[in-house]
Amino acid sequence: MQNTGLKTAAIEKISHKEYFNIAVSVDCVIFGYEEKQLKVLLIKSDLKEFEGLWSLLGDLVTPNENLDDAPYRVLLERTGLKDVYLEQVHSFGDIHRHPSGRVVTIAYYSLVNIKSHKLNLTDNELHWHNVTELNHMAFDHKLILDTCLQRLQEKVLEHPVVFNLLPEKFSLRELQDLYQAILGQELDRRNFRKRINLKNWLVDLNEMEEDVPHRPGKLYKLKSGLKKISTDLNRSKPVKTHLV
Amino acid sequence: MQNTGLKTAAIEKISHKEYFNIAVSVDCVIFGYEEKQLKVLLIKSDLKEFEGLWSLLGDLVTPNENLDDAPYRVLLERTGLKDVYLEQVHSFGDIHRHPSGRVVTIAYYSLVNIKSHKLNLTDNELHWHNVTELNHMAFDHKLILDTCLQRLQEKVLEHPVVFNLLPEKFSLRELQDLYQAILGQELDRRNFRKRINLKNWLVDLNEMEEDVPHRPGKLYKLKSGLKKISTDLNRSKPVKTHLV
Repeated sequence: MQNTGLKTAAIEKISHKEYFNIAVSVDCVIFGYEEKQLKVLLIKSDLKEFEGLWSLLGDLVTPNENLDDAPYRVLLERTGLKDVYLEQVHSFGDIHRHPSGRVVTIAYYSLVNIKSHKLNLTDNELHWHNVTELNHMAFDHKLILDTCLQRLQEKVLEHPVVFNLLPEKFSLRELQDLYQAILGQELDRRNFRKRINLKNWLVDLNEMEEDVPHRPGKLYKLKSGLKKISTDLNRSKPVKTHLV
Repeated sequence: MQNTGLKTAAIEKISHKEYFNIAVSVDCVIFGYEEKQLKVLLIKSDLKEFEGLWSLLGDLVTPNENLDDAPYRVLLERTGLKDVYLEQVHSFGDIHRHPSGRVVTIAYYSLVNIKSHKLNLTDNELHWHNVTELNHMAFDHKLILDTCLQRLQEKVLEHPVVFNLLPEKFSLRELQDLYQAILGQELDRRNFRKRINLKNWLVDLNEMEEDVPHRPGKLYKLKSGLKKISTDLNRSKPVKTHLV
């Protein structure tokens, strides 16, 4: 069957020339965890229009770079971080979101263990901030942060992603503190332990905490098969069917 | 504190001129359900390079249009569909994914009840296809379809989204058939009913099926508070904390 409406890609491009003037950026929401606080890594905006405001780590996608490679480059260039957990979350494309022109941005979040990752903080004023203490940010970055935080909150209830934020060995008390920091609410100790137990994520190490200011708790680690979280969690993992 | 590195947005734009030559498109994965089959709405590609191949419904984002408005326009223009459930899923931005030039696409999925939505199928060869019978598609549309299907599979286990695909009143048998079509696997009847019961999504109507070729089942409907699913599920709903 002949489709007479066919056009070539070259003709398609010429007839849509005014559409090819958008820049695409990536913005990285780097979550860390320290002293029972969920933190995010921010930098002072280098745009006059947002002078004094904090902004996410981000950059324009270069002409010879695949979209999903860009956040890794940004992280490496700005912080020296390699091999981190990164997940694409959402795209933001309101017409006037960037003063330089039409910039559609793709948001990714990452989880890093603040203590075990030595950051190369070469940029001016790159700092960890408590997530709860941020209000006004540059661009639409507060909305992007909130969106990524919500994704993280949904994710931690179903997938073992938060172990990127903990040391190798941890107590259930430490794990609960972390969940509370992420979810922004107190959790009932018994219910929390019951639910975590049902997930079957942990191995009891038969060791106890030492030098703690409370009754020492048992130490656990994440089961080895779960240790390496794919950076592409949404696409490469089979769905676990809880209904079966 | 004076930050001497500040630049204006205008200067930023001039110094990155070669970055502002990307087009952004949206692609819609429209899922429907009929005769125990999960379906997707596709159109023959109008590009010579993909002659004869099926493609998702999509279009370039216009210069005066917010990103998230584009999929609604596409659906309305191509099918006449309004007020449908739409969720942004993932962005695809490999350098050479589109023969016309650099086009980054944002994928959305939608769920429509095939019987209750009268489609204006004005376009040539716009058809429903069984999801399981698609292999090769135009562009990277098979990857986009698979990614959206996986998101749907994850979503249905936690959120009451599938009721967009069912009539107002349905039996648990019909609901299980739908879940099986989406998840691509048989489910154990008892376990399925137990899990659905735990979700507390349904109201027993105290009515029975009529004119069915099997033993009539009880009829249910979705609880009224759950009926209207926001199109912006990821961003506007509070997280239900299963752990609390």
